[in-house]
Formats: sequence, structure tokens, C-alpha cells
Amino acid sequence: MKILWNDQIVDEKEVKIGYEDRGYQFGDGIYEVIKIYNADVFTATEHIDRLYASADKIQLVIPYTKDVLHKMLHELIEINEVQNGHIYLQVTRGTSPRQHNFPLPVVESVLTAYTKETTRPLAELENGVKVCFVEDVRWLRCDIKSLNLLGNVLAKQEAVSKNCYEAIQHRGEIITEGSSSNVYGIKDGVLYTHPVSNLILNGITRKVILDCCQEVGIQVVEEAFTKEQALEMDEFIMSSTNAEVMPIISIDGHMIGNGKRGEWTEKLQQAFEKKIPATLEV
Amino acid sequence: MKILWNDQIVDEKEVKIGYEDRGYQFGDGIYEVIKIYNADVFTATEHIDRLYASADKIQLVIPYTKDVLHKMLHELIEINEVQNGHIYLQVTRGTSPRQHNFPLPVVESVLTAYTKETTRPLAELENGVKVCFVEDVRWLRCDIKSLNLLGNVLAKQEAVSKNCYEAIQHRGEIITEGSSSNVYGIKDGVLYTHPVSNLILNGITRKVILDCCQEVGIQVVEEAFTKEQALEMDEFIMSSTNAEVMPIISIDGHMIGNGKRGEWTEKLQQAFEKKIPATLEV
Repeated sequence: MKILWNDQIVDEKEVKIGYEDRGYQFGDGIYEVIKIYNADVFTATEHIDRLYASADKIQLVIPYTKDVLHKMLHELIEINEVQNGHIYLQVTRGTSPRQHNFPLPVVESVLTAYTKETTRPLAELENGVKVCFVEDVRWLRCDIKSLNLLGNVLAKQEAVSKNCYEAIQHRGEIITEGSSSNVYGIKDGVLYTHPVSNLILNGITRKVILDCCQEVGIQVVEEAFTKEQALEMDEFIMSSTNAEVMPIISIDGHMIGNGKRGEWTEKLQQAFEKKIPATLEV
Repeated sequence: MKILWNDQIVDEKEVKIGYEDRGYQFGDGIYEVIKIYNADVFTATEHIDRLYASADKIQLVIPYTKDVLHKMLHELIEINEVQNGHIYLQVTRGTSPRQHNFPLPVVESVLTAYTKETTRPLAELENGVKVCFVEDVRWLRCDIKSLNLLGNVLAKQEAVSKNCYEAIQHRGEIITEGSSSNVYGIKDGVLYTHPVSNLILNGITRKVILDCCQEVGIQVVEEAFTKEQALEMDEFIMSSTNAEVMPIISIDGHMIGNGKRGEWTEKLQQAFEKKIPATLEV
């Protein structure tokens, strides 16, 4: 497999990461995961815009224009001949003798990007998945898609140890988001989801789903809801680049609705499918 | 310079860090900074104990006994002929295809450690330093000495941009700790400091200072205090492995006490000096 390493596409074994890379010692960097359908990137502009927005928020300079980055990612997909899967892409503040404050003079950032061939989680999209609640202990800048993911890692691990697909995080009683997803509850024909703030990541798939809501005619209320309200929802959904519009059929063992993918969820999946380059049957 | 890379001491250029090292993609790892005085490690047992405690808290297995690690660090200091400085040491959960949950089967952790020759901040220890308040936005597991340090990095950078030596973080009105230090206020002969909890790191230097308090006869109250109370203190101190017992003479431009190192601070510095292998004049 070839890797995009800074502005060069190289063999995997040529990539050199410094032990004093600030990504390695501080998690001082940002990332994106971009879906590839039919050898083409999906919502790439939105992902690249968000990457640069995350960079701005931590005052990290990406030394390429968005267009150049876009082109490099396309080259990488072509060279690796990826049909369906995703690109993982991260940028760190570079390699410099360890100190908390930014290097002065500024050092070159370090970009690594690679592709992965994956299949869509078709069975789960049809049958739904089980999840559990986990306390949200993350920092107060979850709007930044940063490499500081240990809270997310520990939440996901707790979920997996309970045979769950995802951890639904709550800060106090308030549901925020999954460990690597946004979440939504549907009650009486209204879709509720946490508003965009410092407490959640503004998901690209979340945006696509809110567009789908308009198309299928479901009202959207971007308001936080509680754990208790979550359990009372008729339908529950999580979304991410790889999980797409994923039905949740139980939380902490409590069945949601009738324990099957709901009608609104199916409509949203259908609307979502229409937007993606390769339409596969769900 | 030689690097301790897992259980081998190698040339710097031989160290290979994977781009899918979980330390690099998630900050999924822990670290320590251990002071070297007169070619010997200071409070090494305490640092190594804390490293293993941090590892336990994130369910990371360090594949060496504490004794073996201790010996390897000593070898590193000898080979690098360090007289005064520090060891930086980190352990990550290893290299594995990216997914949030822990790799299964477990992969080998990745240890990197290196030394740095540094001098003690003698002028600052005598004259004191200026600091500023910064909102504490970090996660709720600051008791874990993890590689998720972006909050600390941004706080320190804000301090440096204001020509300050350190950022004193506060969660709401409550002072927690510095971006890479613990903090203490002294008022009417009593030393106040945030109690050990999930909101601060249980500093090794903090423990040494609390011992020093007993020796010099100052009462210790481990209770949180506010920003307003901080500004009213007679003396203010920050501490860390490298900053030792550092007098703070102003916060956000407000002079603390008479704007000079206070008497209790000086007594604590003297008590601290007596504990370290190489006693240099402050």
C-alpha cells in the first residue's frame, strides 16, 4: 500500500515518524476519515473544509491549499486502486524538541494519509445494533477533530466489552454523542439531536442526515435530550462516515421501539443512499 | 544520543514509529518525566509507580517489571552520560490497524525513552515568574498522565503568547493546576492546594513539597480555592519535575504579596534542595 506522507506518495516502509513528533507526544494534531464509494470520495469538500477548520482552532498551519490536498488524496486513491473503503488522514504540528508550547520558529507539519478497503456494514444497517451508555469525560473542545481520543477509545472499549457496537456518551444526564458517531432520537415524528456546540463533533454524515430529514419530511429539533428521554424514543440512530445511518435497537439492554429498524430510519437510509455515488442494496 | 526503544538501547535513527501507532493516532499512551541530578534519577521509584498506575487506569500492559524498567533507564543515563537533565519516557498501546477499541489479540506496547541535558532554572527560582489564568477545558481524567495533552498545549501556548511562564488553569472559578505543574497558595501561614482527584495530576514534586511543608512547619490544607482567593494569597508557587518549587510573583498582572519570592517559598526551596542528590545554590 502507498501512503501520502506530506506531499509525497511513498511506500509504507519509507514513512518515518519522529519519536518527538508532537502528534506522538501530545496528540497535537487533527484528522479526518473520508469515505470512498466507487473509487470516488464522498463529501470530500466538507471533510477537507472541516480539517482546515480544526487546524485553525488549534492554530496549526497546513502547508497546502485545499485544492492541492484534494488532488493528492485523489492520486492516493488511484494508486492504491481503492474501490470502496475510506481514507484516513491526519496532520500534526510537526517534530520538534518536546515542550508544551508551539515550536518557534514554526516547524513543518507532518501529514500522513492512507486508504483502506472496507465493505459497508449491510447486516447492521438492516438489523440495527445494540449500544450502551458511557459517561462522557472528554474535554470541552469536542468540536475539534483532534488526535486527543483517549476518552473516545476508553468509551468504545467499554462498549465492546459489553458486546455493544457503540458507546452513547452522556455528560451528566444529557446525551452528547457516540464515541465515534453522532446520535439521534425520533419521537412522534420528530428527530432530536444535540445541537452543534463545543460538546460534540459537527459530523459530516450528521449534516447529510439533516438534509435527508428535509427530503423525507421529518421535523428536526436540534436540542439536547436526556438518557431517560433516549430510552423512550420510538427510534434511535447513530451516524458516522463508516456507519452511515445506523439503527440502534437497544440501549443498555432496553429495547428501543419494537426492537427493529424503524420506518423513519429506513426512509432516512433510502434518502442517504441516493446521495452516495455507488448505490448498493441495504 | 541513544534512545531506549522497547527493551533495546539504540541509535536515534534506528527508532521506527508506525503511522498506525495508537500513540500517534489516539494519544493512547502514558508518560513520565524524571529528573536527573548528578547522573542519578530523582524520585524514580515514585515516577515508575505512577507510570504503572496510569497504565492500569487505561488497561495498558507494560511488558517489563518495574525493576527491569528502572535498570534500563539507568543504563540509558550512563550511556548518554547525562549529568543533569531529565528522562522523557512514554509507552503507547502499540501499532495496529486503526480502530478505537483495543487491539485484539493484544499487540506489544511501544516504549520510547530518551534523556536531555538541562540546567536548573536558577534565575526563575530566585526571582519568581509571571503567570496567567486560563480556562481548564481538559477531560475529567487528569489523574492519568496520558498523551492526550492538547488542552495543556493550548493553555501553555496562551501563557507564552502573554509572556507568561505558565498557565494557571481554573474550572469555573476553581483553580485546578498549571498546564504542566501543580499550584499552591500560601495565606497567613497555611499552604492551600487542590486535593488529589480526577481533576489534577498527583504530582511527584507535589508530594515532595508536602513533605517539605511538614519539615518547615507550615500547615497544609488540601482544599480547592478560587481565582479570587488566588489573587489574595501572600505567596504563590507552582511545582513540576523541572520547575521544582517555583515562586509565582504575579497572576494576570496582579502582584502576589510584595511581588518577590516569599519567606515560606524560600524555606520550602531550601527543604527541597536538601532532598536532591546534587545541591546547587539557588
